[in-house]
Amino acid sequence: MQSRKFSIGIDIGGTNTVFGIVNRRGDLLCQSSLPTTGYPHPEALLAAIRSALLPKIEELGQEEFNGIGIGAPGANYYTGEITIAANLHWQLPVALSKLATAAFALPCAITNDAKAAAIGEMTYGAAKGMKDFILITLGTGVGSGFVANGQLIYGHDGFAGELGHTTAVRDGRACGCGRKGCLERYASATGIVATAMEQLASLPQEKQTEQIEDSLFLSWQRQGHITASDIYRAATAGDPLALNTFSYTGRILGQALADAVAITGPQAIILFGGLTQAGHHIFNPVKAYMEEHLLSIYKNKVALLHSLLPQNDAAILGASALAWQDA
Amino acid sequence: MQSRKFSIGIDIGGTNTVFGIVNRRGDLLCQSSLPTTGYPHPEALLAAIRSALLPKIEELGQEEFNGIGIGAPGANYYTGEITIAANLHWQLPVALSKLATAAFALPCAITNDAKAAAIGEMTYGAAKGMKDFILITLGTGVGSGFVANGQLIYGHDGFAGELGHTTAVRDGRACGCGRKGCLERYASATGIVATAMEQLASLPQEKQTEQIEDSLFLSWQRQGHITASDIYRAATAGDPLALNTFSYTGRILGQALADAVAITGPQAIILFGGLTQAGHHIFNPVKAYMEEHLLSIYKNKVALLHSLLPQNDAAILGASALAWQDA
Repeated sequence: MQSRKFSIGIDIGGTNTVFGIVNRRGDLLCQSSLPTTGYPHPEALLAAIRSALLPKIEELGQEEFNGIGIGAPGANYYTGEITIAANLHWQLPVALSKLATAAFALPCAITNDAKAAAIGEMTYGAAKGMKDFILITLGTGVGSGFVANGQLIYGHDGFAGELGHTTAVRDGRACGCGRKGCLERYASATGIVATAMEQLASLPQEKQTEQIEDSLFLSWQRQGHITASDIYRAATAGDPLALNTFSYTGRILGQALADAVAITGPQAIILFGGLTQAGHHIFNPVKAYMEEHLLSIYKNKVALLHSLLPQNDAAILGASALAWQDA
Repeated sequence: MQSRKFSIGIDIGGTNTVFGIVNRRGDLLCQSSLPTTGYPHPEALLAAIRSALLPKIEELGQEEFNGIGIGAPGANYYTGEITIAANLHWQLPVALSKLATAAFALPCAITNDAKAAAIGEMTYGAAKGMKDFILITLGTGVGSGFVANGQLIYGHDGFAGELGHTTAVRDGRACGCGRKGCLERYASATGIVATAMEQLASLPQEKQTEQIEDSLFLSWQRQGHITASDIYRAATAGDPLALNTFSYTGRILGQALADAVAITGPQAIILFGGLTQAGHHIFNPVKAYMEEHLLSIYKNKVALLHSLLPQNDAAILGASALAWQDA
């Protein structure tokens, strides 16, 4: 199979599914999206994806296709099934890999989005040539993919890499998983908004930050709520509350990364996802606090990198990379 | 090399070095020990080990030997060197693997004791047939060896597996590594003594525990200090302070293990080393707190096991197993 040129990448999200055809260099030859919620069962979605891709598949030649990779919430690499996934409306379990193979007559591998992103970075992105690294997705939640000895760590049951559900703050914020103080409750888009709301609630009477046109306080007054983008904008405008919010978030995440480094000893940590659009506002405190808390043997040795997968195509590229792994 | 029958295991400690000849089933055919501190440089120690083993090597036939495995503090699997090791008196760096190969005319692999123990459990012990597990050594310090996809995680620089130096208590006890609140400061023999001393210091005036003949308080009064064995004996006699000490230690370790499980998703965690001699006094609270803090997908799925390497031979067996790995 090594000589086959193309693979199909599919990223199934709770709301939308994106998919495309990718070559071995990571060029996206075509792509499209469909509303996940528009399909009552996964067979229907897969059939629609196939219809959308068929002209391109026929043009390139079915025999040139290596396989399909799918990133989906709760997807188990070992079983090819989704058994639990809070944000999918389908009746579970779903034998996703088997259904995709039936629909496309191609081998299929599945895993969750963070693990797919890790393989994507290793195949086409910032982790090319690396054998030991950690990828962290900072989005609505916090996901992670750990690679050691050149292989993704799936764990015994296929669910390894849940750094987002390790304890960042003992007895901290309640998490949807039933635990308390999970990293995900602090270092995600929702987490940083919660931190900013705490900061707003603790504001003294004379609110100095009203002076700044793009302050968090004004965003909140105007809209009745704030978003991660509001915090980023306010930080860029110099709002101290927003800067404190990023500093606090960076401290929590940096401390967690220092501990993760002690366990798997990576060459680099790659940050990926929505929150990384805040650039130095998030990277600088994460880096500073990670270095402060690293064991001395790791200080100034672990690179903190931006993802090199184009943000808009990353989900498809990550999923497609799974198909090369299995080849 | 697959057909060669024997390997040499050497465990170099700060005080003593133990070594022996092991077959593929993990039987120890001969063993001995030498004082590490009696040798001004490692060449002299290796020559003495060779002299001690030579009769047996000649009896079995040098051509039947597969290689040498050495466990030593700070030993780097990749470079074959020891560059930093607080408790070795030799001038560092030492090209240990090269020196051993020169002395014995056999290939040599080296790593630290916890990683050697992990490979030992995988080869002869409780982790036979497992591809994903964590070994934890609870001795003077806390060491760990993480195995994923059937391979030990050495990390990019060879120093992965430092669970003992992840943060168990934020801003907690000062650690020799320069950090604060490291797991090692709580879940080791020295850590449990520190916890017991804290408990003793907080005793109210009327000391109920004096009633118990083997109480911690009496041990401390008699000797002016206490040891991990005193705590174990007092717990067995029902002393509430000693039981609280184990419960606290088990909580800290159980919480740390729950987080480690979220990262690498092991099938089992194997506890190894001096502190495990306390049996259910340590296993029960570790298990209970680990289960309480595990992500729901892992609850009641991760076995907490005793090492199956005989305590006295474990260091040699672990080191010898390294030699089969490389074969």
